[in-house]
Amino acid sequence: MSAVEERLSALGLTVPEVVPPVAAYVPVVRDGNLVFTSGQLPMAGGALAAAGKVGAEVSAEDAKGHAATCALNAIAAIKSEIGDLDTVARVIKVVGFVASDPSFTGQPGVINGASELLAQAFGDKGVHARSAVGVAALPLDAPVEVEVIVSVEG
Amino acid sequence: MSAVEERLSALGLTVPEVVPPVAAYVPVVRDGNLVFTSGQLPMAGGALAAAGKVGAEVSAEDAKGHAATCALNAIAAIKSEIGDLDTVARVIKVVGFVASDPSFTGQPGVINGASELLAQAFGDKGVHARSAVGVAALPLDAPVEVEVIVSVEG
Amino acid sequence: MSAVEERLSALGLTVPEVVPPVAAYVPVVRDGNLVFTSGQLPMAGGALAAAGKVGAEVSAEDAKGHAATCALNAIAAIKSEIGDLDTVARVIKVVGFVASDPSFTGQPGVINGASELLAQAFGDKGVHARSAVGVAALPLDAPVEVEVIVSVEG
Repeated sequence: MSAVEERLSALGLTVPEVVPPVAAYVPVVRDGNLVFTSGQLPMAGGALAAAGKVGAEVSAEDAKGHAATCALNAIAAIKSEIGDLDTVARVIKVVGFVASDPSFTGQPGVINGASELLAQAFGDKGVHARSAVGVAALPLDAPVEVEVIVSVEG
Repeated sequence: MSAVEERLSALGLTVPEVVPPVAAYVPVVRDGNLVFTSGQLPMAGGALAAAGKVGAEVSAEDAKGHAATCALNAIAAIKSEIGDLDTVARVIKVVGFVASDPSFTGQPGVINGASELLAQAFGDKGVHARSAVGVAALPLDAPVEVEVIVSVEG
Repeated sequence: MSAVEERLSALGLTVPEVVPPVAAYVPVVRDGNLVFTSGQLPMAGGALAAAGKVGAEVSAEDAKGHAATCALNAIAAIKSEIGDLDTVARVIKVVGFVASDPSFTGQPGVINGASELLAQAFGDKGVHARSAVGVAALPLDAPVEVEVIVSVEG
């Protein structure tokens, strides 16, 4: 088991199976040392963990947890491509999309759910640049979607 | 004619002239082996093919076609930079923005219009990572905007 | 002083201190020759320059100025990583998110504030690919957020 997965295990988390794309694309593409994930939804056990807009049907606190689920699914996508998660050299960039009631402006706190999980999993290598924005709607009415770019050793 | 353009031709499609930017930027930038397009709108023959929000004024089915037009314009932008489209090594990443009524959550089906065209044009090299999100509004009231990152051989 | 900063100085602008992230991430990450900034808000002197949606509480003209402030903050983030701004080889990509009333579709004009500043600062190297989109809401109710990818010599 990779050190990354051991750290997740200590948090009670397991890297899940990669989530099948909901459309005509793949979960992850590697080009050279860069690995790009598709936007990850908070799928858990094959179902969306929650639906609705943050600041309306979904609370900011719950959405933070869903963002962590998105990040865990991104880790699963990366693992499916590179095998050993300990070969991640750096988590470079995260973009977090929060389906937001227009009055909700706490996107940073929500996407912290993803950022903190990545830091816990990858340590210093997990600290990344990030954009967090509030969008009108997300696929399947998901409250949050997260995409990740990492570099790998070699 | 490149094999990519022959495949598009078999679909009745021609790579158009590159769409001039609507502002102070360029349609495409190459850095090393990576080529980044600007966000492409569904311009056809110099005019926007449709205006309005998907789930309100624009149907999901029509928007899927407009997403294909965006992808064709992205191919035009890439061609303007690299010349021979057969030197594309991989379509790495697509981000699709769908101007969405907040009740519309079918963004994946809309952006499939872009993803399927890229797969038809580039074959196995056209299968990419992707994010699809629903935004409040797009330039010129376009229903969809698509940006693409590809790598080129060499 | 770098030539980039001399050109900004001629415009009456100074590269500010890097804006601390509002959450669990860093302002900038370098990987090889690529430098990715986090999404930059229009912070000036430690405070948000304006709040509200463009097309409603914030005018397009004012938002264009705020987009320039975002770009200046992106330059500050890049400088904090690379030191000498004259080693920027190319501004590759800008994504501009405009918190938009759904009826507002002038995102390109707003994000021109960022694009024009980058062109003024970096000259020919500052001309970039770009996406501009209108989102439902941004962190702290900011009217605009801008992220930048540049390459550096090496």
